[in-house]
Amino acid sequence: MSPKSGTPQKNLMLFSGRAHPELAEEVAKHLDVTITPQTLHNFANGEIFVRFQESVRGTDAFVLQSHTTPINEWVMEQLIMVDALKRASAKRITVIMPFYPYARQDKKHKGREPISARLIADLFKTAGADRIMTVDLHTAQIQGFFDGPVDHLLAQNVLAEHIKETYGNSDITVVSPDSGRVRLAEKWAQQLGDRPIAFIHKTRDPDKPNEAVANRVVGKVKDRLCVLVDDMIDTGGTIVKATEALLEEGASDVVIASTHGILSDPATERLSNCKAREVIITNTLPIPEDKRFPSMTVLSIAPLLARAIEAVFEDGSVTSLFDGSA
Amino acid sequence: MSPKSGTPQKNLMLFSGRAHPELAEEVAKHLDVTITPQTLHNFANGEIFVRFQESVRGTDAFVLQSHTTPINEWVMEQLIMVDALKRASAKRITVIMPFYPYARQDKKHKGREPISARLIADLFKTAGADRIMTVDLHTAQIQGFFDGPVDHLLAQNVLAEHIKETYGNSDITVVSPDSGRVRLAEKWAQQLGDRPIAFIHKTRDPDKPNEAVANRVVGKVKDRLCVLVDDMIDTGGTIVKATEALLEEGASDVVIASTHGILSDPATERLSNCKAREVIITNTLPIPEDKRFPSMTVLSIAPLLARAIEAVFEDGSVTSLFDGSA
Amino acid sequence: MSPKSGTPQKNLMLFSGRAHPELAEEVAKHLDVTITPQTLHNFANGEIFVRFQESVRGTDAFVLQSHTTPINEWVMEQLIMVDALKRASAKRITVIMPFYPYARQDKKHKGREPISARLIADLFKTAGADRIMTVDLHTAQIQGFFDGPVDHLLAQNVLAEHIKETYGNSDITVVSPDSGRVRLAEKWAQQLGDRPIAFIHKTRDPDKPNEAVANRVVGKVKDRLCVLVDDMIDTGGTIVKATEALLEEGASDVVIASTHGILSDPATERLSNCKAREVIITNTLPIPEDKRFPSMTVLSIAPLLARAIEAVFEDGSVTSLFDGSA
Amino acid sequence: MSPKSGTPQKNLMLFSGRAHPELAEEVAKHLDVTITPQTLHNFANGEIFVRFQESVRGTDAFVLQSHTTPINEWVMEQLIMVDALKRASAKRITVIMPFYPYARQDKKHKGREPISARLIADLFKTAGADRIMTVDLHTAQIQGFFDGPVDHLLAQNVLAEHIKETYGNSDITVVSPDSGRVRLAEKWAQQLGDRPIAFIHKTRDPDKPNEAVANRVVGKVKDRLCVLVDDMIDTGGTIVKATEALLEEGASDVVIASTHGILSDPATERLSNCKAREVIITNTLPIPEDKRFPSMTVLSIAPLLARAIEAVFEDGSVTSLFDGSA
Amino acid sequence: MSPKSGTPQKNLMLFSGRAHPELAEEVAKHLDVTITPQTLHNFANGEIFVRFQESVRGTDAFVLQSHTTPINEWVMEQLIMVDALKRASAKRITVIMPFYPYARQDKKHKGREPISARLIADLFKTAGADRIMTVDLHTAQIQGFFDGPVDHLLAQNVLAEHIKETYGNSDITVVSPDSGRVRLAEKWAQQLGDRPIAFIHKTRDPDKPNEAVANRVVGKVKDRLCVLVDDMIDTGGTIVKATEALLEEGASDVVIASTHGILSDPATERLSNCKAREVIITNTLPIPEDKRFPSMTVLSIAPLLARAIEAVFEDGSVTSLFDGSA
Amino acid sequence: MSPKSGTPQKNLMLFSGRAHPELAEEVAKHLDVTITPQTLHNFANGEIFVRFQESVRGTDAFVLQSHTTPINEWVMEQLIMVDALKRASAKRITVIMPFYPYARQDKKHKGREPISARLIADLFKTAGADRIMTVDLHTAQIQGFFDGPVDHLLAQNVLAEHIKETYGNSDITVVSPDSGRVRLAEKWAQQLGDRPIAFIHKTRDPDKPNEAVANRVVGKVKDRLCVLVDDMIDTGGTIVKATEALLEEGASDVVIASTHGILSDPATERLSNCKAREVIITNTLPIPEDKRFPSMTVLSIAPLLARAIEAVFEDGSVTSLFDGSA
Repeated sequence: MSPKSGTPQKNLMLFSGRAHPELAEEVAKHLDVTITPQTLHNFANGEIFVRFQESVRGTDAFVLQSHTTPINEWVMEQLIMVDALKRASAKRITVIMPFYPYARQDKKHKGREPISARLIADLFKTAGADRIMTVDLHTAQIQGFFDGPVDHLLAQNVLAEHIKETYGNSDITVVSPDSGRVRLAEKWAQQLGDRPIAFIHKTRDPDKPNEAVANRVVGKVKDRLCVLVDDMIDTGGTIVKATEALLEEGASDVVIASTHGILSDPATERLSNCKAREVIITNTLPIPEDKRFPSMTVLSIAPLLARAIEAVFEDGSVTSLFDGSA
Repeated sequence: MSPKSGTPQKNLMLFSGRAHPELAEEVAKHLDVTITPQTLHNFANGEIFVRFQESVRGTDAFVLQSHTTPINEWVMEQLIMVDALKRASAKRITVIMPFYPYARQDKKHKGREPISARLIADLFKTAGADRIMTVDLHTAQIQGFFDGPVDHLLAQNVLAEHIKETYGNSDITVVSPDSGRVRLAEKWAQQLGDRPIAFIHKTRDPDKPNEAVANRVVGKVKDRLCVLVDDMIDTGGTIVKATEALLEEGASDVVIASTHGILSDPATERLSNCKAREVIITNTLPIPEDKRFPSMTVLSIAPLLARAIEAVFEDGSVTSLFDGSA
Repeated sequence: MSPKSGTPQKNLMLFSGRAHPELAEEVAKHLDVTITPQTLHNFANGEIFVRFQESVRGTDAFVLQSHTTPINEWVMEQLIMVDALKRASAKRITVIMPFYPYARQDKKHKGREPISARLIADLFKTAGADRIMTVDLHTAQIQGFFDGPVDHLLAQNVLAEHIKETYGNSDITVVSPDSGRVRLAEKWAQQLGDRPIAFIHKTRDPDKPNEAVANRVVGKVKDRLCVLVDDMIDTGGTIVKATEALLEEGASDVVIASTHGILSDPATERLSNCKAREVIITNTLPIPEDKRFPSMTVLSIAPLLARAIEAVFEDGSVTSLFDGSA
Repeated sequence: MSPKSGTPQKNLMLFSGRAHPELAEEVAKHLDVTITPQTLHNFANGEIFVRFQESVRGTDAFVLQSHTTPINEWVMEQLIMVDALKRASAKRITVIMPFYPYARQDKKHKGREPISARLIADLFKTAGADRIMTVDLHTAQIQGFFDGPVDHLLAQNVLAEHIKETYGNSDITVVSPDSGRVRLAEKWAQQLGDRPIAFIHKTRDPDKPNEAVANRVVGKVKDRLCVLVDDMIDTGGTIVKATEALLEEGASDVVIASTHGILSDPATERLSNCKAREVIITNTLPIPEDKRFPSMTVLSIAPLLARAIEAVFEDGSVTSLFDGSA
Repeated sequence: MSPKSGTPQKNLMLFSGRAHPELAEEVAKHLDVTITPQTLHNFANGEIFVRFQESVRGTDAFVLQSHTTPINEWVMEQLIMVDALKRASAKRITVIMPFYPYARQDKKHKGREPISARLIADLFKTAGADRIMTVDLHTAQIQGFFDGPVDHLLAQNVLAEHIKETYGNSDITVVSPDSGRVRLAEKWAQQLGDRPIAFIHKTRDPDKPNEAVANRVVGKVKDRLCVLVDDMIDTGGTIVKATEALLEEGASDVVIASTHGILSDPATERLSNCKAREVIITNTLPIPEDKRFPSMTVLSIAPLLARAIEAVFEDGSVTSLFDGSA
Repeated sequence: MSPKSGTPQKNLMLFSGRAHPELAEEVAKHLDVTITPQTLHNFANGEIFVRFQESVRGTDAFVLQSHTTPINEWVMEQLIMVDALKRASAKRITVIMPFYPYARQDKKHKGREPISARLIADLFKTAGADRIMTVDLHTAQIQGFFDGPVDHLLAQNVLAEHIKETYGNSDITVVSPDSGRVRLAEKWAQQLGDRPIAFIHKTRDPDKPNEAVANRVVGKVKDRLCVLVDDMIDTGGTIVKATEALLEEGASDVVIASTHGILSDPATERLSNCKAREVIITNTLPIPEDKRFPSMTVLSIAPLLARAIEAVFEDGSVTSLFDGSA
């Protein structure tokens, strides 16, 4: 008969937790939007309070949080922001977590452990998340933990571009710091132009069982520029020992490349004192001044995030940005 | 034909987060069980790891956490413990939160806010909680936020018993510190033997609109022992101002009674300097030595928790312990 | 390659249960739509049947029902209407319940009771409701019972406007009829211009324990116009006794204001015989002629509902209408 | 280490709504239990309140309601009882609905209708029902509407036994009153000893399109005792017209057998005035005195319900009682 | 402030499983779209792999599969396609199953059986289906198995149109092949112009209990053109015996009409050798050349599917196409 | 008052799909139970039908299926069995899938792919599975795909025991056939007594980009017995090429060990013709006679399954059997 009718509009709104406002600002600038103003603080006993200062009805909401220390704080903050958006009638809520929290607890290593990476996915689903956007998951299987679309971005492109420009003419060998990430090294080797690969094998020598773990280099590294790749650097122990082993085996130089710079103590001390020529990371996590050192290069993930947000908002095809969900 | 058969056993196991181990120990002692040994620590970047050191298959698990500062940390820890229990085949998981976190965010005070108390209930449901046990909820409606049984224990009994013994012969008036908890004062007044009640009314004086908020005492307090009751003391501002107002109005003495001693700064300073004769709280939250002062009395909630756990385990009728779920 | 494409339209359609068709008509008129025609009747054994007479595919459906006696009948009718809309591909279903049924059973007062207000929220979710719109909830926590957006409208504005116009120049005291709604009286007092408040304290006199309940007035009421406020009037017992107590204490006059006029017998008799100067309610529930009396004023909630529906349909910002979800 | 342990007990408790207490009493007697005492009443505005007077923790709860007029009232009452049991920690909740409400709305006959029989199943699931026990579903597919076990009892056995005893030596023809239940007549025919069947065909005569609907008898009925079978008798129109048609076609006598005696007006008048020799029904629905008449026989369903409850409680094999879920 | 905004577009995309690509092509042609290109194959161990070759973000996806032998293969394939669409951010996913798999297992015929038709509905819901489109369900109650909209198309129109054109002037009797589908025959009889109906009654003769099942024709068939109707022809046994019985009873001719041509062996042999004048089916299932025979007519369901898809995409009113969900 | 009470019994019942009855028989023998008799067959159009021949009420049901070709058939069969158990009131349903189907599709390798391994977990959850038991998952993260307990058994123990006994005195090198499973080789190396490891690196030679993929052996293999380990052997291409590469590099001998013998064509031909001394697999999948060859050893997984079933039934602690869920 006479229903009321109209043409719907869709609006992109960007929201930011308090863990890494600089990254959000940078993304906002690339998108040419402003971050939605909000009241966001802790009460005296630590409870978090949020209130958005503008209507969010019907909006296509993107909620960015960077899961650095104190990581549980930032998880809860983002969950609470999502709950507020759901109850205030946002149309679609995309949770952006450049570094996926608890990604390393993605299986039970022994009995009676949690699978915290699955728990994280379920908690966000419960709070009201419709989709997740993340960068360089520790294992790609984590995509399957969320019951909905996951946009899995690859920072490897950003890092590799820098390496190609800087060291493209060197004799590069791509190196995995342990036996579990040899496949990753293979992918890098392809992207850098079919380079040889190597890896560090941590083992007790079977012939001398009482001796300590040894870092054995497997593969051609002598007189070559070794690019040590990993998805994250936490305390830096593994990567620095790998660097030493490579140099001992005659590598001409070592460059370290990793997406997520967790840099827990004493990572900065270790990395700045090791003989690697350059340590390249991104800002998926905030890298405060006191964790930086001269040979560190921090590349920004913001342009990648901005392009992905735009693609999601416009339902565009963006396979080149994504691993697995364009 | 020939199925394998047997008589099932049921086992009660108690688990404790790291927020308040003393309370868990006390409960365990009352129950005559030992807390299940576990590995529980934070990784360098703050992620929490848990592993139980004994089989929990088929167990009736009770997971106790006290939600003190840093509150989000302890929420996440308890969620992760529940996930681990679910995946290790615990038969039933009861989450014990003596102080319900985010209880004050139980509604939207204005638009675009979360309802965090509901979110908390849903997060625990998602992690695998079958039931919740809690003490003196900020509002009883929070029971309805969880989709399952909630055992709502009343510490009021514990506190009131102490007051009866100590001040039973005085002329008591029960006082609510604000207009929102007059009903609670009424319940106390009944339990203490049909005492009169009063409350503090915070208001701008309508006749002098430019003046600041005034604390007006409403009710008979002159020459009487005022028992100021509230469910929680956070920074102590409200309760201390109420104390001052009561003494100004001629109260002979003031005793403060509250279940949850959050005691955020500067609560201890304020309370120890105010003229209240005694401040009585329970240990639903840990009360470290540096927050204690001579006129503070801390009553233990452990016997109440232990009796409730026993009742739940034995499917017993325990109406006297509970408000609303025996 | 060549997908078929188009620009979506969105249509607002209004549906009405049979409890209070006048209210729906009034809302429709404000919205300038017609109520969607339907076949809606009971079979001989009381089962309800509904069939909509127009396509509802893709529509933004608003389903209005007023939960008056027989309340369970109207709940079931609205549930069945929502089911029919879901199965007929409505895009979004907003359930409008101006008076939220079972709002008073929002917690377990004792053990082994239901929490029917939560059950109602879950039943509508199950039937297919995407959101709920309601007016002046008995407790605001009920918003948290529904897993989705709740638009909580405030009729207080409508009522207060009338009082300001009619009695604005009097010396008003706002009065709560019991200890549980003193906070509500405070909000009214602010809205009417920082007026003093009072409340009625029902108590056994502690000094005369065998005597019956007394209604003690607490606060300044002598020679003042008392505005007695409550969210609902059911049988009218409480509010009429409060009126008497106020007049006994010397109040110059009493005006009763309440959003929901349930008016179960003998409310009309009681109210029309009491000495209140005016009884002001809204039409969230139907007020049939035989329940009306000369000093009753019924204000319409329809303009408020219409504006809220429009705001929801247009994803507009409407904080002023709402308490908590604009 | 030292968990607390014990051997679980299981307890059967029977709960009854207010629609048909006699049936519940009868079932209780067969089971040798007492109905759990409860407070159950309506508030002035029609809202239902329930409180169980004994602990129900860990119980195996059976909740019996008979869905007679006012049917929506009894549905809501049973839902609220289930919610109360869930929140009070009943271990398993079996909803007993001898007559499944809204069973006839089991599909959309035209567009934009609800499927209320599915809605009923979902509402009980949401409230907390673990399983459903019901008698002679209108269509057996309704079993599939509930996501869990359904015990579908057959009253046909009870009715057929009576017929065998009373009319076993007659020349019986089993008759379906319309084209949709010919299959049911077939089952009866087998149970009564491979009797012939017939049915009533309602049709406009294709050769005389302007004439009204005719009831044509199809099959051998002349000089035979016709047993007219149906699952329910509502207003009795169909079954009485069928009776007349059979007698006109020369049937020696007509006996009507039906499980559910809804008996909406004017069923009793119609049935008592028609020429059927006997009308046999069960008490799945209450049959008040004023609906009874001399030729009506009411068989009790209580023994069947009691045996089924016992079987469910004891996890026994009871295929003989059930159609489809032993 | 400055959210990014735009007008959403909606795109219809058609996807096809491998069971019956000709039908999908035909539907695509009617819709004037191309089937979305994809990689779809089995691995050596039988696992199915799918990858869509174009972005499906935000699309209105229609996934057509025909559930012929090997039926479980095609069910799994369609489930996997739906999962891929969900994870790739399709906006809405409509599962088109012209023949609903496992429709005959729509209830428990005896104890301890599955209700596979409900299981199928739940599996597709779990995979991510928002709605189902199907043709001529075995029982209409299956609509209620899916928790969402079901578009139930009727091929009867397509078949009846052909019969009217070809045999409209004959003396037609509509015949049901067994006692369970007499109602269906009634509907056909109406559509063909109030024709008489008959049915085949399979029975043991009660007077000769040791003799085999007899097919007794009930109704006027002598010298008439019998239109035998059923929803599906599987092995053809029932329908061919019915044909023989009708011809024995003096029918002038028999025409068989059925929506779903399952045609399991030896259906083709039986049907081509029986004396039916014409066997009319549709292509809801593929009818390969070697199953066809001269008297078989295959009508295309594609125009009906295409119109329904268009109606769903455009939120149009299409009651005439549908039984129960326009 | 007088509830009926009793002590519950629990019964273990074993159910078997049709894919690999020998394995089920073997497990039953170890458990000393008989497989529950059932009717299980396909209808002419391929639909599966199941009916259990004994009551399963209250049972602890274990449903074993082996997911060999035709794999989708066996998945559907097991889903249907689970549905039947759920509807027949089994108390707990454990799905045993020694080889987890679709385990290799555990992530999106590119965009617009399904995550079929997660879909499988969700389908079984929907059907009614309470827990999953499986052997040697392709990636351990799949445990996190199921929302409930997963018992992840390790056949590595079974295989390694055999190798220790047979080749324990040789100079063993453990070899991974590609870069993605080097970590697995490491675990084997530890279990066999800290042996050295190696792996096969498939690569295009960066210096000769137009040449085909080369299999480069990395690690010490000359004059050593190489144990090539993988979780599954499908067509055998990778493992046979690895064998050849190892022998070319001077390995003294090659032994192949893999849990899951999928053995799709031409695996048997390839393996029997290659120069590996022994190929050791288990019977998680059926190994029919025509796929066997002289140098193949098939170890039984039945004892491991039987012990795990017993442990689950008895809620025992069985960490030694499990990786991650005891």
